[in-house]
Amino acid sequence: MKDALSKPAYEAAAADLRVALLQAQKELAASGFSLVVLLGGMEGSGRGDFVNLLLTWLDARGVEVHALGDPTDEERERPFFWRFWRLLPPAGRTAVFLTSWYTDPILDRLFKRASRRRFEEQMGRVVQLERMLVEERVVLVKLWFQLSKREQAERFKALRKDPATRWRVTGRDWRLHKKYHRLRKISRLALAETGSAEAPWRVIEAADRRYREATAARTILSCLRRALARAPKASPRKPDAPKPKPGNAIRGLDLSLKLSPDAFKESLDLLQGRLGSLTRDLRRKGRSLILAFEGPDAAGKGGAIRRLSAAMDAKLYTVKSVAAPSDEEKAHPYLWRFWRELPRTGRVAVYDRTWYGRVLVERIEGFAAPGQWRRAFGEINAFEEQLRDFGVIVLKFWIAISRAEQLRRFKDRQTTPYKQYKLTEEDWRNREKWDAYEAAACEMLERTDAPGAPWVLVEGEDKRWARIKILKTIVKRLERELS
Amino acid sequence: MKDALSKPAYEAAAADLRVALLQAQKELAASGFSLVVLLGGMEGSGRGDFVNLLLTWLDARGVEVHALGDPTDEERERPFFWRFWRLLPPAGRTAVFLTSWYTDPILDRLFKRASRRRFEEQMGRVVQLERMLVEERVVLVKLWFQLSKREQAERFKALRKDPATRWRVTGRDWRLHKKYHRLRKISRLALAETGSAEAPWRVIEAADRRYREATAARTILSCLRRALARAPKASPRKPDAPKPKPGNAIRGLDLSLKLSPDAFKESLDLLQGRLGSLTRDLRRKGRSLILAFEGPDAAGKGGAIRRLSAAMDAKLYTVKSVAAPSDEEKAHPYLWRFWRELPRTGRVAVYDRTWYGRVLVERIEGFAAPGQWRRAFGEINAFEEQLRDFGVIVLKFWIAISRAEQLRRFKDRQTTPYKQYKLTEEDWRNREKWDAYEAAACEMLERTDAPGAPWVLVEGEDKRWARIKILKTIVKRLERELS
Repeated sequence: MKDALSKPAYEAAAADLRVALLQAQKELAASGFSLVVLLGGMEGSGRGDFVNLLLTWLDARGVEVHALGDPTDEERERPFFWRFWRLLPPAGRTAVFLTSWYTDPILDRLFKRASRRRFEEQMGRVVQLERMLVEERVVLVKLWFQLSKREQAERFKALRKDPATRWRVTGRDWRLHKKYHRLRKISRLALAETGSAEAPWRVIEAADRRYREATAARTILSCLRRALARAPKASPRKPDAPKPKPGNAIRGLDLSLKLSPDAFKESLDLLQGRLGSLTRDLRRKGRSLILAFEGPDAAGKGGAIRRLSAAMDAKLYTVKSVAAPSDEEKAHPYLWRFWRELPRTGRVAVYDRTWYGRVLVERIEGFAAPGQWRRAFGEINAFEEQLRDFGVIVLKFWIAISRAEQLRRFKDRQTTPYKQYKLTEEDWRNREKWDAYEAAACEMLERTDAPGAPWVLVEGEDKRWARIKILKTIVKRLERELS
Repeated sequence: MKDALSKPAYEAAAADLRVALLQAQKELAASGFSLVVLLGGMEGSGRGDFVNLLLTWLDARGVEVHALGDPTDEERERPFFWRFWRLLPPAGRTAVFLTSWYTDPILDRLFKRASRRRFEEQMGRVVQLERMLVEERVVLVKLWFQLSKREQAERFKALRKDPATRWRVTGRDWRLHKKYHRLRKISRLALAETGSAEAPWRVIEAADRRYREATAARTILSCLRRALARAPKASPRKPDAPKPKPGNAIRGLDLSLKLSPDAFKESLDLLQGRLGSLTRDLRRKGRSLILAFEGPDAAGKGGAIRRLSAAMDAKLYTVKSVAAPSDEEKAHPYLWRFWRELPRTGRVAVYDRTWYGRVLVERIEGFAAPGQWRRAFGEINAFEEQLRDFGVIVLKFWIAISRAEQLRRFKDRQTTPYKQYKLTEEDWRNREKWDAYEAAACEMLERTDAPGAPWVLVEGEDKRWARIKILKTIVKRLERELS
């Protein structure tokens, strides 16, 4: 006996649900949460009908429905998740995904375009992403509409019979129907591997329209209510002041390394020429390049970046400076601001400060709660893994200087007209927290040093040495990656 | 004798320019202005070299360089200007366009893919866009690097000789070289037709590298300085209170028009079915649809929209509610928030309040200065013309109700649980200004009623009448456009 609902029971439930959903949606709008509904399930299980209904029950303003077709060429030039990242709703709003990050992995596995191992890898990534979304105040509701093979066939036949709905059953639907059992097996695997406590799947028997619609709506409502009740209390601003260990990686650097002006000039010309030509090859090789720079104020990030940019075609690169997020950025997970502007194939993005701000300045100044910056290590590793997996070349530089050298440079900035704009009050304040920043940096270097995206520590006391080391590292890496 | 600059003169100028540009860029960052540099000119005139240099003189952070290739498929599904609209920098920042809204029109004319008339139409649009940008605090610098045919040939030969620069001269360059005189003629025409007082062209002799670079940088600097000196004084908040004319279009409506529940039900089913099927055809016909709703609070916009959305596939439409702009939106021209989210081919965007807010609420409440809302009529007409020109079907509805009916509906909202969220303090305040809103609406209806995007006035006193009239109008229009 399948789950079903009588007409009167449905109508009573629907009236209540409608009022309650509207109310919850209104509370959502004023909260720091967003709502993401993934609507998975077999063809013919009524997902489209349900979302049509949902949009008449909810206030359709503030709800986006996404049924993505083939990736656009802008999407094809970015990692798999990019097309979903950019569609994530801001706080207060709702997105319903009829195509989700499950769709392609399941179909690729169904048609054996992906190995079992690849499929499991993808499910692992999905788990990482969803965990992060939930932590970042996305109310994630994952519904799966279930239908037996016989029910599916009956549904298709019913739709075919009515001239008004005939168009809805396509050849693709029948092809998938033939593979029903394999598809069900793969879907079950996907559900099993990704159904976590924080983002569980709700499997809904979909044969009876009234039952599936009432149940799905009720599930969304209860997820929303639970999340809103958790109360988005602002995390307390709690600056952290870790102590650096004596023999840490940064202190272990030999800051006396130097380069003579002549040796510098000679290497510079050579390396810049090489860099210019290598970056022109990126497009042809289908690759893009991300160069990330971190280090204390006045470590020479800007100067090093100018030596790179002088070598590259201005059409190919962008230099991004990471400052306070905009309100649209604040209304999304903290990595969204980086997701949204990932470089296309053939292009170079240079970051003067990066997503690592989460575990540096945000940690030390208390802009991120301890729970937030602690989980950021893993989230950032996952993010960079996706970049590398897609073929983005990622290079991360930490430029180190001594505290005394920083002071000399600050004073120099005070007296040089075209450098004055670079020195702010904040720089002096950060300088007071030198030790905490060093300790945070060391933890970051340890915890995010991945095989494909290693940290390069740069002795920055001598600017010439630092610039050549950076250029050399990039050229070497590009030569290896593009050969 | 061509314009040239000696090496010592250049070096002295460069040192000064660099300091001054950095200073101006810093002032720009704190101003309400953005800087857009269009860098036009012949191939081989050194535009690329100049932008490379400019990025080493400026702080490259905060500058984006755009050299666009073929449109992406996301761009192809939107009007011509869309790819540029979305790249406009926010206030405080800079964009340099090596490919601009001049590129395609000039090349299309060169290769006779566009008629002379089409070309002039396009230049007319360009003038409209640029005028708006300048009004919206974009510092627009239009540079044209000039080169004689002989100089161009020499330049190409010199580049070919050096192995390091050989790749820069392509077959396309030589093809354009052969058409030098026609290209020059068309370019001159473009410059003549678009060189206005507010956005003049600066033609720079480009044969001498030092001269062209110093001159171009100096021109950018002086434009920036002039704009920044104009001082972005905040326009005074000055609410407007126009008086409605006695026999105006809104008052002339017969608000007694009614529909019986039976007639309503019958028409509704028929029209909804038709609308569903017509909107499915949009994609195949390469069209998209914009439905814009305006009218007093409680006029029934939301209810009418729900009758539409209930008929359409949720995958195909989005309902957008226009509220206060985000800070990113505020940092751009006021139409940017609408530009950025234009629907793709095959999709429907329904607007609950629209860009007409500029000449309604912003006018009456004083959020827009008189100069701003006055020019908005023309800007909005130009915007919609571009939509129509691209094949977007635009329908605009003004739903009218009487003041007494509004009061009845406000009271009803107060007492119906699932309607309470729709009534705010602001609604009551706006009601006090009924006459001013009516007068502003009448002026809007008159001044923006374009042949391809006419206003449809809807008698809204009877909701059934209004909903059917709206549905009927859309269905009729779609039938005409898609047949």
